[in-house]
Amino acid sequence: MNNEKITKRDEDFAKWYTDVIRVADLVDYSSVKGSMIIRPYGYAIWEKMVDVLDKEFKKLGHQNVQMPMFIPESLLQVEKDHVEGFAPEVAWVTHGGNEELEERMCVRPTSETLFCDHFKKIIKSYRDLPLLYNQWCTIVRWERTTRPFLRSREILWQEGHTMHATAKEALDETLRMLKVYEDFQRDYLAMPVIVGKKTDKEKFAGAEETYTIEAMMYDGVALQNGTSHYFGQNFAKAFDIKFLNKDNKLETPYQTSWGCTTRMIGGLIMTHSDDAGLVLPPKIAPIKIDIIPIKDTDNVMKLVNELKLKFEESDISCIVDNSDKSPGFKFANAEVKGYPLRIEIGPRDLENDKVVIVRRDTLEKIDVKVEDILTKVNELLKEIQDNLYNRALKRRDSMIYNLNTYDELREMSQKEGGFAFVNWCGNVDCENKIKDDLGLKSRCIPFTNNEPDGKCICCGGEAKTKIYFGKQY
Amino acid sequence: MNNEKITKRDEDFAKWYTDVIRVADLVDYSSVKGSMIIRPYGYAIWEKMVDVLDKEFKKLGHQNVQMPMFIPESLLQVEKDHVEGFAPEVAWVTHGGNEELEERMCVRPTSETLFCDHFKKIIKSYRDLPLLYNQWCTIVRWERTTRPFLRSREILWQEGHTMHATAKEALDETLRMLKVYEDFQRDYLAMPVIVGKKTDKEKFAGAEETYTIEAMMYDGVALQNGTSHYFGQNFAKAFDIKFLNKDNKLETPYQTSWGCTTRMIGGLIMTHSDDAGLVLPPKIAPIKIDIIPIKDTDNVMKLVNELKLKFEESDISCIVDNSDKSPGFKFANAEVKGYPLRIEIGPRDLENDKVVIVRRDTLEKIDVKVEDILTKVNELLKEIQDNLYNRALKRRDSMIYNLNTYDELREMSQKEGGFAFVNWCGNVDCENKIKDDLGLKSRCIPFTNNEPDGKCICCGGEAKTKIYFGKQY
Repeated sequence: MNNEKITKRDEDFAKWYTDVIRVADLVDYSSVKGSMIIRPYGYAIWEKMVDVLDKEFKKLGHQNVQMPMFIPESLLQVEKDHVEGFAPEVAWVTHGGNEELEERMCVRPTSETLFCDHFKKIIKSYRDLPLLYNQWCTIVRWERTTRPFLRSREILWQEGHTMHATAKEALDETLRMLKVYEDFQRDYLAMPVIVGKKTDKEKFAGAEETYTIEAMMYDGVALQNGTSHYFGQNFAKAFDIKFLNKDNKLETPYQTSWGCTTRMIGGLIMTHSDDAGLVLPPKIAPIKIDIIPIKDTDNVMKLVNELKLKFEESDISCIVDNSDKSPGFKFANAEVKGYPLRIEIGPRDLENDKVVIVRRDTLEKIDVKVEDILTKVNELLKEIQDNLYNRALKRRDSMIYNLNTYDELREMSQKEGGFAFVNWCGNVDCENKIKDDLGLKSRCIPFTNNEPDGKCICCGGEAKTKIYFGKQY
Repeated sequence: MNNEKITKRDEDFAKWYTDVIRVADLVDYSSVKGSMIIRPYGYAIWEKMVDVLDKEFKKLGHQNVQMPMFIPESLLQVEKDHVEGFAPEVAWVTHGGNEELEERMCVRPTSETLFCDHFKKIIKSYRDLPLLYNQWCTIVRWERTTRPFLRSREILWQEGHTMHATAKEALDETLRMLKVYEDFQRDYLAMPVIVGKKTDKEKFAGAEETYTIEAMMYDGVALQNGTSHYFGQNFAKAFDIKFLNKDNKLETPYQTSWGCTTRMIGGLIMTHSDDAGLVLPPKIAPIKIDIIPIKDTDNVMKLVNELKLKFEESDISCIVDNSDKSPGFKFANAEVKGYPLRIEIGPRDLENDKVVIVRRDTLEKIDVKVEDILTKVNELLKEIQDNLYNRALKRRDSMIYNLNTYDELREMSQKEGGFAFVNWCGNVDCENKIKDDLGLKSRCIPFTNNEPDGKCICCGGEAKTKIYFGKQY
């Protein structure tokens, strides 16, 4: 624990956020402008995320591969919309050693072009489809303003890239992977998300459709926390990828890509954490329990060691804090780090055959009989996971506003945050006006309950759908 | 399996090597000169390596972190020897989007400078030491000639970086991690290695000492397959890193770094594989058994499914090849892919209550009673692992030559390969002469049995030590 104060969340949310990640030792700033150092505790959270998602991807038949990190300029240019979207924000390598390169290369901002270049070589027949690939790597986007985990020049992520014989299969895959993200964020990160489709304006450069999961942070600002793209045949045609179908005729395959990033760590923090520091859902916390001996008497240490062993046997990760710091410091550290539970074991409590368990989400202190500890711990971990989700869901729902007039929308845009759920004519002019006038960007068109029930909130014309607008990170 | 022929190993070793990795679908060449695509089967081998090593590092107290991939030029220049060693072979980023950078940055060729920059901020007291960090990432070195896995512009690797209060602790760590590499390569990769110290000429740019594990490939050429560096206080002084010791006085810490790369996959191939394709030691093979139904009758498929379940329960990874290819194609595929065992199950054998198990290392076919399959499989997997190690050890030892005269050394250098074990005066002039004249580079000075027993093989002067020389990849 870094021995500094954390700004109050309700006083200055942006400062609170950077305070929490610094004091909890999640990241450090580096000499490389716009890039962050992910410290051990921050990286351990990412490792947990990778572990869960990687198993899920593999269970669904995806295989991991590794593509080069560089993209020659000519390759990036093959798909027109794609290069227009990405060229302005890439880092360019122009020299190798002392020599200027014949063709400059960018550090990948995403790898559709590299995958397509490879797919063209390895896809020959319908037998090669579906081709389900994934890559864990870092990407670079030359952002002007950066914020740790949320927007940074270098990002750790995974990118799935798949090819299919039919449009239906590809579209099914796009939505299947979106659901993997949704389930993961709900079940592990305890984050409620709104799933839906991006508008044409907001979709990925080169995609037919982009689907998204949108989370709302504590301050009401949106975080796009995972996207899944349906490309149709856009890239496949640009790269001239073909396969022989069962009737021995050449066809063009259909493609998807989908990704999520270390940004999820930022989302976790801005959803659950509080003035005392980090709050981590038990299912993603690298350390679930901090055992703190109040005094290191023989009796205390005997129980400490027994518990540690018992937790390890039950696959509950725990640490013992037997440093020479004061109990007060240790309690504060456990809170800053967001360990879901801490167990305080003192000689006096032990005389009464009990310990104190403190849950991080509510800071409630609970006396527990020694013999009941394991049962109680399992019960509390489950309770905390559920409580964090329900708390976040309640807060989010309280900040979703069904609005009918532009005045209401303006008024809302001047308040703290939240999502406006409104009728929209589907015209990009209205979408642009709402963004330019009010600073609200379209989030997504939800899959269900999207039937319009009034006129477009902007132009007053016929509405095509309901849609979410909100400020975004 | 790629349906192409593999050149005979004894005919053209270099071509055989690239044939094997292509036909076994390990890598593909990319449009990015000097960079390779690691395909699913190749990447699965790397994932196995990462899994074993990462657990071992963590068991010894190391924590994973993630540093930026870029190094500003001024940061690379802080340690003099280091920049001289690496600057000529890095890729330079000069533009972000459309703007030229104020200071160009290289893509990390290694991360000592980044770690030191961070260490300076986070190391304050003896309580912060030892600091044991590791990073899994890719690095870039602008190599002129490249060969998949062995030498390529982008490399997947891990780099450990540790700081210690005393020289002894740092040196112990250097050797401890060298031993981790040695044990891993012997016990998992079935590769015998020679451990020892690099000469001053061959050590890492900026290190006090570099230790190495040197493997010998089938063709007698050396592969440096992991290194561990002791830096003393070189970088710590250059970066002005200090800590308060127990007496509240400022001291400079001692440092190590150590790394191994995807090159180990190249080493695996060039040690064990043969004219039929890949041969993988069972403990590192992503798939241990290929179950091949000769006909898909009910009886055959019943046993196939039972076996698959049984192997999975015993944590033995297996696949079932029930494609529409011929049995002959399937057998060849199993051999090309180097699955340690294949089980052929046909209706006729089943009538006699037996199956045929073929071991990949010897291609021996063994009739096994159905009820004995699991026992026999476990026995064979162990036998294959041991046999591969012993076979490689025997071949390597048969190609180590104790030589006494320069003529003998010249004669050996004109033959196929192997290591010369010779007396050396310790002078870099002799080391250079042997390299320039004969194309033999110093490999290492072994830790034991290194006492000289004659005059320097080059100048005839007083010998200081015995040392290995050999051609290298």
